[in-house]
Amino acid sequence: MTDSPPLDTSIERVEDVLAGATDASARLGELDPGERGELLVAVADALEVAAADLLPVAARETHLPDRRLEGELARTTHQLRLFAEVLAEGSYLEATIDTADPRSVPTPRPDLRRVLVPVGPVLVFAASNFPFAFSVAGGDTASALAAGCPVVLKAHPGHPGLSALTGEVVTEALTAAGGPEGTFAVVTGVDKGRIALLDSRIRAVAFTGSLSAGRALFDLAMSRETPIPFYGELGSLNPVFVTPGAAERRAAEIADGYVNSFTLGVGQFCTKPGLLFLPAGSSVLDRLAELVRAVPYGEMLNDRIRRAYTRTLSDLAAVQGVRTVVDAADGEEGPVVGPTLLAADVPALLADPDAMLTECFGPTSIVVEYEDTDQLVAAADAFAGSLTATVHGEPDEGGLVDELLATMRDRAGRIIWNGWPTGVAVAWAMHHGGPYPATTAPLHTSVGATAIRRFLRPVSYQGVPQQLLPKALQDRNHLHIMRRVNGSLTTADVPAGT
Amino acid sequence: MTDSPPLDTSIERVEDVLAGATDASARLGELDPGERGELLVAVADALEVAAADLLPVAARETHLPDRRLEGELARTTHQLRLFAEVLAEGSYLEATIDTADPRSVPTPRPDLRRVLVPVGPVLVFAASNFPFAFSVAGGDTASALAAGCPVVLKAHPGHPGLSALTGEVVTEALTAAGGPEGTFAVVTGVDKGRIALLDSRIRAVAFTGSLSAGRALFDLAMSRETPIPFYGELGSLNPVFVTPGAAERRAAEIADGYVNSFTLGVGQFCTKPGLLFLPAGSSVLDRLAELVRAVPYGEMLNDRIRRAYTRTLSDLAAVQGVRTVVDAADGEEGPVVGPTLLAADVPALLADPDAMLTECFGPTSIVVEYEDTDQLVAAADAFAGSLTATVHGEPDEGGLVDELLATMRDRAGRIIWNGWPTGVAVAWAMHHGGPYPATTAPLHTSVGATAIRRFLRPVSYQGVPQQLLPKALQDRNHLHIMRRVNGSLTTADVPAGT
Repeated sequence: MTDSPPLDTSIERVEDVLAGATDASARLGELDPGERGELLVAVADALEVAAADLLPVAARETHLPDRRLEGELARTTHQLRLFAEVLAEGSYLEATIDTADPRSVPTPRPDLRRVLVPVGPVLVFAASNFPFAFSVAGGDTASALAAGCPVVLKAHPGHPGLSALTGEVVTEALTAAGGPEGTFAVVTGVDKGRIALLDSRIRAVAFTGSLSAGRALFDLAMSRETPIPFYGELGSLNPVFVTPGAAERRAAEIADGYVNSFTLGVGQFCTKPGLLFLPAGSSVLDRLAELVRAVPYGEMLNDRIRRAYTRTLSDLAAVQGVRTVVDAADGEEGPVVGPTLLAADVPALLADPDAMLTECFGPTSIVVEYEDTDQLVAAADAFAGSLTATVHGEPDEGGLVDELLATMRDRAGRIIWNGWPTGVAVAWAMHHGGPYPATTAPLHTSVGATAIRRFLRPVSYQGVPQQLLPKALQDRNHLHIMRRVNGSLTTADVPAGT
Repeated sequence: MTDSPPLDTSIERVEDVLAGATDASARLGELDPGERGELLVAVADALEVAAADLLPVAARETHLPDRRLEGELARTTHQLRLFAEVLAEGSYLEATIDTADPRSVPTPRPDLRRVLVPVGPVLVFAASNFPFAFSVAGGDTASALAAGCPVVLKAHPGHPGLSALTGEVVTEALTAAGGPEGTFAVVTGVDKGRIALLDSRIRAVAFTGSLSAGRALFDLAMSRETPIPFYGELGSLNPVFVTPGAAERRAAEIADGYVNSFTLGVGQFCTKPGLLFLPAGSSVLDRLAELVRAVPYGEMLNDRIRRAYTRTLSDLAAVQGVRTVVDAADGEEGPVVGPTLLAADVPALLADPDAMLTECFGPTSIVVEYEDTDQLVAAADAFAGSLTATVHGEPDEGGLVDELLATMRDRAGRIIWNGWPTGVAVAWAMHHGGPYPATTAPLHTSVGATAIRRFLRPVSYQGVPQQLLPKALQDRNHLHIMRRVNGSLTTADVPAGT
């Protein structure tokens, strides 16, 4: 094992990786779901064993605090194990059986059986800000492997040593657990990512990163002779709307929660609240400046991100109608930055929404004051797609709250009530996605049990004899999974002669 | 009602239609699934009542025989009623509830509830070859309305009078059944389709048609500032692989079935078998020429399609190694065409796969002879995405059959055993899709119960109180649907205090 940054992957090695992933594809897909689950658990176990090697490299390369990294690694292994559960549960296969019905109208129906199969080798672009959970062994890798798709992982240059080391842990664990050779490999280098993206052997892409980089790769994927699904998580503003009632009754709690949420991890979360809407003159605003000034300064992930942050922040601060309430610039030194609080009002936002509704990746947020609830709803209406939208309200504010929830339901992937958007639970009911530009694929999530679907496509078998059918579709329910038989969900075998 | 071809929709009318669809969006989505199901049934009923008006216009504009059109209309109303059943059954909502768990590891879990919601107004491009089932009131319209999405229907110029008439029937039925105004409208004119496609109010597109037209519209949809899902069904070759055993034992049956399938409807089906693979010297080939010569000539849908057919056929016949076994050209007159049978061998196919693997929309198919089963598998491997792949085999040909099924599983949406690809059952287990160029969205189908998914996106609600949650996600299972609660599928209410 090594923790020194590797050189960019050679062209020859990229070719070997693509050929290996293609070779592995059929064998990985042929495993029973339970067997693939064992591979995922083996990777989780190996990451835990390697934690003492991985964590110091992660800390050195990302400047994230130890406790955060430990938590993130725990989340990463939990995620792998959740997908093992999803595989064991088996309804992700959507096994559907319609037995032949010569009397069906308008035409006789043949025996039809539908199941989901892996799409083939997947290219995953790792993110910078979650060196474990959205990187080499992160959610995209876990869900693609769970689906039965080999993974070509384009490492993020922000944590090269950790990427190489994690790649070795994953590859060795898969091999030791009996996974097909070629199931997983790490490649490095911007051009190598593009080469893989354009290669016809790659059948889907997952990406987490900036709007500009993500859109460029999306455009490239769509320009292929054979376009492929591109699951990009790009940019998100995560607005928080505080009603007059909530601002009145929970000013202190809201101020505390907001400052904590937007400065957490030096503001480097895709779910960081970018804007907080408050009634004009609310006492929340008074408290905010004080709290923001008390937040300790922190080091950003890397210089490139810090430079982009500084640039976006200065653009944002220069927007007509935006004023700086707390300016961290004075106390910043080298890579260390402090939180910045900006303020504006709804008319300023509506005068130039494109300028103010720009994601600023880092510890900056804008408080936007509204004069009345019409202004609040008009502001909500100005948002494009976002990963999350949060409403702080009170039970007696029905009409306004209904309107805010309905407006944001059409614009966000997750609606949070009286809470904060940072913190994305890995669960069956999580949706981490949203309309563009939050993602390039609004029907899909990158976190939670249903993330596996991105890498599965349906196939129907018509009139195929039992012994030639995939196990999940035979009359006997070999996998003991929930299936839809002639329209009804059941775990029973299909009775003979139906 | 009128059956004369309407003028192209004016720009002002397109704007009204888009504004109306946007206004209708929230109200249509707010209806209970059962209420939307009633709208679909009302449309089905109205189409049946109007059949006597619709069928003669369809026959005049498409030259399709009466019996075929009657069957297609029955399929169309059946499809609308199937989606009403899907709505009543309710599991399409994927309601998923994870109750709060403060002890969950690695972090406490908030209350999270996920459900699918409509994506918003959908633009549907109607097809030429199914004037009912893939046109104004066809599967795309039915599934989008079922999902709760208003539909802007771009009519196909091949049957303008029928499109206008069907549009009136659908709009009037929806209005009479209490559907929101603006739920459905027909527009005409190539440029009007493009204007709607580029309009930010349109949130998804469905298209059935040619590879060139579909790809151009796909590229346009992807070029938008906000790209949107584009569900295009483009081109498909639908190969049929006949093993040595099947050719030996079922020569007559295979020859009959094949000629019937590729000449049905003057070969104007997206599932028409484009190539038939036979062992060299098989007696099937002898029989084919005779059968093809006996097929009656027929009129194609329209002149544009006939001209494209003639062009593609002459290109295909000129490919090196392709010979013409039955040439219909002599007996053709005006719009009437006869079936053409071409033949080649596997080495010719592999020498220039791009030339020979070209869809020819019309009554032409190529018989491809193979010398041995290695050649057969190599030929199967040369295919890109297809809607269907068919294998004719015998139970004692295990190894070969397994290999063909596995190869085609990665290339086709539906695998047919000892049958024929034409005829697409509208059922829960149907998948009518496939990898590009069969479709631009290999995860989705345009036929069958799951076609509704194309127009739904997930939203998670975090910590939202009961009275503010959508009905499908409240503790009480108001809709009596299957839901996933804390990981398990159940129709029970969520117990209080969990």
